[in-house]
Amino acid sequence: MARWEPDARGRLEKAALDVFRERGYAHTTVGDIAERAGLTERTFFRYFTDKREVLFSGSKELEKSILELVVNAPVGAPPLDVVASALETAGAALQSRRDFADVRARHAIVTEHAEVRERELIKLASLATTVTQALHARGVQEPAASLVAEAGIAAFKIGFERWISAKKPGELAKHIRAAVDVLKAVTATVTVAPPKRTRAQHGTKNRK
Amino acid sequence: MARWEPDARGRLEKAALDVFRERGYAHTTVGDIAERAGLTERTFFRYFTDKREVLFSGSKELEKSILELVVNAPVGAPPLDVVASALETAGAALQSRRDFADVRARHAIVTEHAEVRERELIKLASLATTVTQALHARGVQEPAASLVAEAGIAAFKIGFERWISAKKPGELAKHIRAAVDVLKAVTATVTVAPPKRTRAQHGTKNRK
Repeated sequence: MARWEPDARGRLEKAALDVFRERGYAHTTVGDIAERAGLTERTFFRYFTDKREVLFSGSKELEKSILELVVNAPVGAPPLDVVASALETAGAALQSRRDFADVRARHAIVTEHAEVRERELIKLASLATTVTQALHARGVQEPAASLVAEAGIAAFKIGFERWISAKKPGELAKHIRAAVDVLKAVTATVTVAPPKRTRAQHGTKNRK
Repeated sequence: MARWEPDARGRLEKAALDVFRERGYAHTTVGDIAERAGLTERTFFRYFTDKREVLFSGSKELEKSILELVVNAPVGAPPLDVVASALETAGAALQSRRDFADVRARHAIVTEHAEVRERELIKLASLATTVTQALHARGVQEPAASLVAEAGIAAFKIGFERWISAKKPGELAKHIRAAVDVLKAVTATVTVAPPKRTRAQHGTKNRK
């Protein structure tokens, strides 16, 4: 009979990161993580399907919050801005919930281990599918919906990587916004300053 | 002692697709594939590390050809156009080398099996990294290089999916180009018709 353990999920996550840092991800077993958390292996498997999954705790909630933000964005807002804004908000929430050193330690494990990176890519692909469907619900057609979703997730990923590797990280949301702005700049073949009429300009210069 | 088998790689690829179609991917073993090709398991493992990998034959060559196209593109060409053009050329080459029914059968297997889809995502991530590095070699800075690479690969992926599921598929390169054009349209906050001066127009209308 399993008894309820207060914040078992959070304790397992924290224990996993600690043990991964000490022994290395590859040399850690689920048993090691459970032991460190003062819980049983059985409890571990009630929360996570495997050792990798403990690194993606909260990814479902992240996906759900992004979905809601996209669905509930103001009517008529440009799709990429809707997605960018949702990702920024989700990024800010992620940053407020987690310790930066933990996020960085987790990211190092993801980057270094192919099997964990695979899982990360699957999660990002799943997120892109969810965002695509949310855009469909807003009336955005294909292939625009898929392209906005994929491009938005790419900006999120690259913004996140720049944040995590920055000397002075600052706000994750700002890095995501900066990546979206650069994306807009590099995809613009012709840009024009909005307030007054100007000649069409070729090039990829960021107007911001 | 392994003896040389004429076009062993091609025979294994063809045999794998045939057996996958007949028995289903999950129920096929490497032994089944080798037997159908009239070769040994040992020969199979000289060419492919596992059952999944036989579905990604040629992915290294594809990556290499895209790398060369990006590196050798005209100096000063806008990065996204360089990448789009490389992906179109590689797409056209892929289409000319393969039978459409085979490409479609392969795609169905990738879509239906999580472990194969994981491998596909890894290959696409690897391609994005290669394209990013090729853009660095052209002098494109970060994060622009990563964003162009990721956005370009997204357009390639979505163009490919639309081609593979079209009733009249036509040319893969055209689907890739169309995806890039839509990407440009959805990321444009302000667009203006190039030939004459016009008022700045908000929206995501594709100018092409």
